[in-house]
Amino acid sequence: MASLGPSIDELISALRCLPGVGPKSAQRMTFHLLERNREGGAHLAKALMDALDNVQHCRRCRILCESDICIRCQDERRQQDQLCIVEMPSDVLAIEQATHYKGQYFVLSGHLSPLDGIGPEALGIPRLIEWLDEKTILEVILATNPTVEGEATAHYISELARERQIKVTRLAHGIPLGGELEFIDSGTLSHAFSGRESI
Amino acid sequence: MASLGPSIDELISALRCLPGVGPKSAQRMTFHLLERNREGGAHLAKALMDALDNVQHCRRCRILCESDICIRCQDERRQQDQLCIVEMPSDVLAIEQATHYKGQYFVLSGHLSPLDGIGPEALGIPRLIEWLDEKTILEVILATNPTVEGEATAHYISELARERQIKVTRLAHGIPLGGELEFIDSGTLSHAFSGRESI
Repeated sequence: MASLGPSIDELISALRCLPGVGPKSAQRMTFHLLERNREGGAHLAKALMDALDNVQHCRRCRILCESDICIRCQDERRQQDQLCIVEMPSDVLAIEQATHYKGQYFVLSGHLSPLDGIGPEALGIPRLIEWLDEKTILEVILATNPTVEGEATAHYISELARERQIKVTRLAHGIPLGGELEFIDSGTLSHAFSGRESI
Repeated sequence: MASLGPSIDELISALRCLPGVGPKSAQRMTFHLLERNREGGAHLAKALMDALDNVQHCRRCRILCESDICIRCQDERRQQDQLCIVEMPSDVLAIEQATHYKGQYFVLSGHLSPLDGIGPEALGIPRLIEWLDEKTILEVILATNPTVEGEATAHYISELARERQIKVTRLAHGIPLGGELEFIDSGTLSHAFSGRESI
């Protein structure tokens, strides 16, 4: 493809590290930043460097945060005996927004995926085992995604908790609110049917 | 919404200056960069700053380039008497790739849009008039987009060229190659019908 110069090509290729950005979008973003919004571009470069410098993982729950220990882990009013295990930092935000849960979190930053070389070490499982061994946790809530990898990861962690006689729960599967039976996938429907509750 | 910290929030909001990136994508990009691809993020910040420092507009044709005058304007083997007028730098690349055109370009960086405060000045029209007054140009090729604004801009420039007795041409409208009549919009079809050519 014809080129406009090395710095422009470099920016187009660097933008492709963003998820969901292909060559056409990267080119469009580059022209937009250079033609129309240089201020926004400079602000983005600065915000990116600041975040890379300041943001680390909480030493306790592994969420992204800007101090050694995140605000939720520092908050002593939160329940200390419940531990909710999620895949991503955004899952913590979603649960905080949607529920009244006031316990602890542990962020795996992914799920077990041996083919990609992601094993227990990469998910911080050794740190999780230490925590479970402290004997402060009475309930482990598994909130990994309902995908094959998420289920496998949940199963793996549930074994760790059971070995230590800790109660393990999993988010309920079933029909989403506002869903219509006709349009729900058969896996979900079968799950909801066999897991029916008496009212 | 719950927050993970000021640097993270700042990065999420800064990413929204990219075209097509809303709050959800910006959040996903932020977590991806900070969790999975810090190297890519650092590279992006550097590429962005380099491009903002090095890239400017060619003084002659206003395309984005890294020197005072772009390579196409420096190339004396290109025809000096044809001038193709486009809206965006990417249009130059598209024409270079698809055609054998070897003349000059002029990049407007947009189209006339009085409501957004984009008038002739912002499109470099004074510079274009200087160029037309040099009397080196024998044909102006209008290659603005076939939108209402693009057509209005083309009309405006065609008047400038006609006043100076310069031949003006416009890219042909019609049925795109591989198109099926049934699925072509009525505006294009009516244009193609009334502009039919004898073979």
